[in-house]
Amino acid sequence: MLKLINLENKDWDILLSELKDREEEVKEEVLKSVSNILEDVKKNGDKALQSYTEKFDRVLLDDFEVSIEELDECFIKVEKNFIDNLEEAKKNIEYYHNAQKSRGFILNKDNGIFLGQRVIPLDSVGVYVPGGTAAYPSSVLMNVIPAKVAGVKEIIMITPPNKEGKLNPYIGVAAKVAGVSKIYKVGGAQGIAALANGTESIPKVDKIVGPGNIFVATAKRLVFGKVDIDMIAGPSEILVVADENANPKYIAADLMSQAEHDRLASSILVTTSKQLYEEIEKELEAQIKDLDRKEIIEEALKNYGKAIICNSIDECIEVSNRFAPEHLELMAENPMELLGKIRHAGSVFLGNNTPEPVGDYFGGTNHVLPTNGTARFYSALSVDSFIKKSSFLYYSEEAIKRDGEKIINIANKEGLTAHANSVKVRVK
Amino acid sequence: MLKLINLENKDWDILLSELKDREEEVKEEVLKSVSNILEDVKKNGDKALQSYTEKFDRVLLDDFEVSIEELDECFIKVEKNFIDNLEEAKKNIEYYHNAQKSRGFILNKDNGIFLGQRVIPLDSVGVYVPGGTAAYPSSVLMNVIPAKVAGVKEIIMITPPNKEGKLNPYIGVAAKVAGVSKIYKVGGAQGIAALANGTESIPKVDKIVGPGNIFVATAKRLVFGKVDIDMIAGPSEILVVADENANPKYIAADLMSQAEHDRLASSILVTTSKQLYEEIEKELEAQIKDLDRKEIIEEALKNYGKAIICNSIDECIEVSNRFAPEHLELMAENPMELLGKIRHAGSVFLGNNTPEPVGDYFGGTNHVLPTNGTARFYSALSVDSFIKKSSFLYYSEEAIKRDGEKIINIANKEGLTAHANSVKVRVK
Repeated sequence: MLKLINLENKDWDILLSELKDREEEVKEEVLKSVSNILEDVKKNGDKALQSYTEKFDRVLLDDFEVSIEELDECFIKVEKNFIDNLEEAKKNIEYYHNAQKSRGFILNKDNGIFLGQRVIPLDSVGVYVPGGTAAYPSSVLMNVIPAKVAGVKEIIMITPPNKEGKLNPYIGVAAKVAGVSKIYKVGGAQGIAALANGTESIPKVDKIVGPGNIFVATAKRLVFGKVDIDMIAGPSEILVVADENANPKYIAADLMSQAEHDRLASSILVTTSKQLYEEIEKELEAQIKDLDRKEIIEEALKNYGKAIICNSIDECIEVSNRFAPEHLELMAENPMELLGKIRHAGSVFLGNNTPEPVGDYFGGTNHVLPTNGTARFYSALSVDSFIKKSSFLYYSEEAIKRDGEKIINIANKEGLTAHANSVKVRVK
Repeated sequence: MLKLINLENKDWDILLSELKDREEEVKEEVLKSVSNILEDVKKNGDKALQSYTEKFDRVLLDDFEVSIEELDECFIKVEKNFIDNLEEAKKNIEYYHNAQKSRGFILNKDNGIFLGQRVIPLDSVGVYVPGGTAAYPSSVLMNVIPAKVAGVKEIIMITPPNKEGKLNPYIGVAAKVAGVSKIYKVGGAQGIAALANGTESIPKVDKIVGPGNIFVATAKRLVFGKVDIDMIAGPSEILVVADENANPKYIAADLMSQAEHDRLASSILVTTSKQLYEEIEKELEAQIKDLDRKEIIEEALKNYGKAIICNSIDECIEVSNRFAPEHLELMAENPMELLGKIRHAGSVFLGNNTPEPVGDYFGGTNHVLPTNGTARFYSALSVDSFIKKSSFLYYSEEAIKRDGEKIINIANKEGLTAHANSVKVRVK
């Protein structure tokens, strides 16, 4: 099912642009409709939210906030062992993200000069959680826990109500486990508008994170600058680097786990062994039969599934670095020896027993990752995403007297005499 | 010259939106013209660069790269003491930014599980440096040094040529001092297009930083996603918190140093002393006479200069936190005691002898800062701006056997059976 690519005639630009082209074009009409919704919510607040919720979610709500009672009900509806699994995942995710916390610093210099940097959590964050048929409680954990670890006080979650006007119980449970401050049942562009501007009932936040459909993503793009946002996630991808000893059964399963996300998802095998590729092809055929999302997997593999046979593991690594994959599995004998050569990858899964879903759900690393080759310059969602750094500087009278002339000289050369003047009044 | 604002009738939203409204609206025609330039350079490479350079910079260049000889000439043209001042500034900036470097980590857990995060510098960065009458060598240092400290190998600078087709010598000197890899004489939207796509002579980069006019800023916006960019800088501001003992002469000078940047710059005094405000007004009148950029200062102060009298220093701090200023001067008796209360500020200048220009040019902190209230969620340009973080995760056979069922359970609840399958094939 994977398209075999000949490395001899490789044209990287074409190969890479094929993947880049997966990105959805935002249609004029989506942009217009989202702009209108943003304007309306800004002007009419809760009243606008109410009417969009009636229109899109088919339910009339007088109060968007999820009550303590409604949240408690979620815990009755959801299986106990699922809650336990989420609690354990949470512990692992916290453990990893705690290690990401950075600290401020101060440097003392001569003449009493000191300077440094403070690390300050954002005041408030909004987390968007999609509704619809598939609920992703794991995504709640991955978006909320880093903010919590960073020290964000107010974490506001919004998610569309179901047709009974209720919260999806799995989402409710995950929100409580993760430590969300408040939950509001509002979705779509109207929800993003509420978080960006505030309404009578929903507070304005400093940053909005979380995945969503094209309306949500477009709304995030449009409010960007007024508030911060996370990355706008593109279609997802996995690249598996495998030597001749790798297990074809495992690799086939892993390639399909990525492909089931989306018809635009890309699964790429890069290997030193043509025989392995052939065995994987057979495994794909055999395993796909029992999978619920068979059609999506088939279409994704057909369009964006690739296999590249290399002459050496180092060549495999070079191919991977060019793709800069979101997820990278290293299925080679000593994967840790290869890790140092990986320059661009969102998250790396080492060895035969670390399929990507371990990281998606449980291991502790974050599953919100840079897609579509942006791992060249972006990082996963992390504690860093929810803090800002603020510098400080102190000069004593002696220090400004010593350095003043130099500062005046540079300022004058730049033609900024008022800058020079602010030093002059102190030293002359 | 400052507009006195009454805190009793304060309407924060109006006050803050007045400042936010300073942002330039991107005109349809600018957007169209920039889009055309981007397309043209993408298609025609150096040929397009040549023709835009002829059109906008009035010079025909066969080779954009600055030669070693041309760079050497800059050092002949520029005063020796200016070069010394830049070298000293560089040392201070390096010293501070070295302290920002973060390290990767690894966590070992039971059953052989390990996971962690690596810090990897970007491969290549483009730095835009504006041309025109005013050259800002300090801006070269502030944009290049953090990238250098981060470990970026390839730092490509672009800047428009002057009418003789030459590099501004002050910019050349600063580039050499900062450690730029290569300099190309090309500016405007065409320069940004070259960095984002690459041409025959100019390499593609992973991230573009540096200030520019509306064409440059618009081009950066449009290539954003294909490559990373820094913040798009809005109009600049300073807020001075001063108690009754502060020096009116100093404060007046500092407010004007900010105002000279731009007709849209905002200077805000927040003080416990009405008398101080009145003395500052007199000082503004007295000092402005001798300043080169008098008209700009007058206009900026008239439109965006404000004074707010508070009942206590704590109230001053509250006002400052609402503004989330780019630059904050704390001119109070014990400024360090106030620092902990500052939640949102790009950079803080402590005490009577640390006017903002010390930080702009010399002290070591970065002068590329979040403007226009975005200090609520953004940080200064830093070493972090030029690295990405990549996570890794290893599960052993025992570990996947122990945790497998839990992962399968969560995957199935999310309806992702191919995710569940990738664990099943390993544990069953």
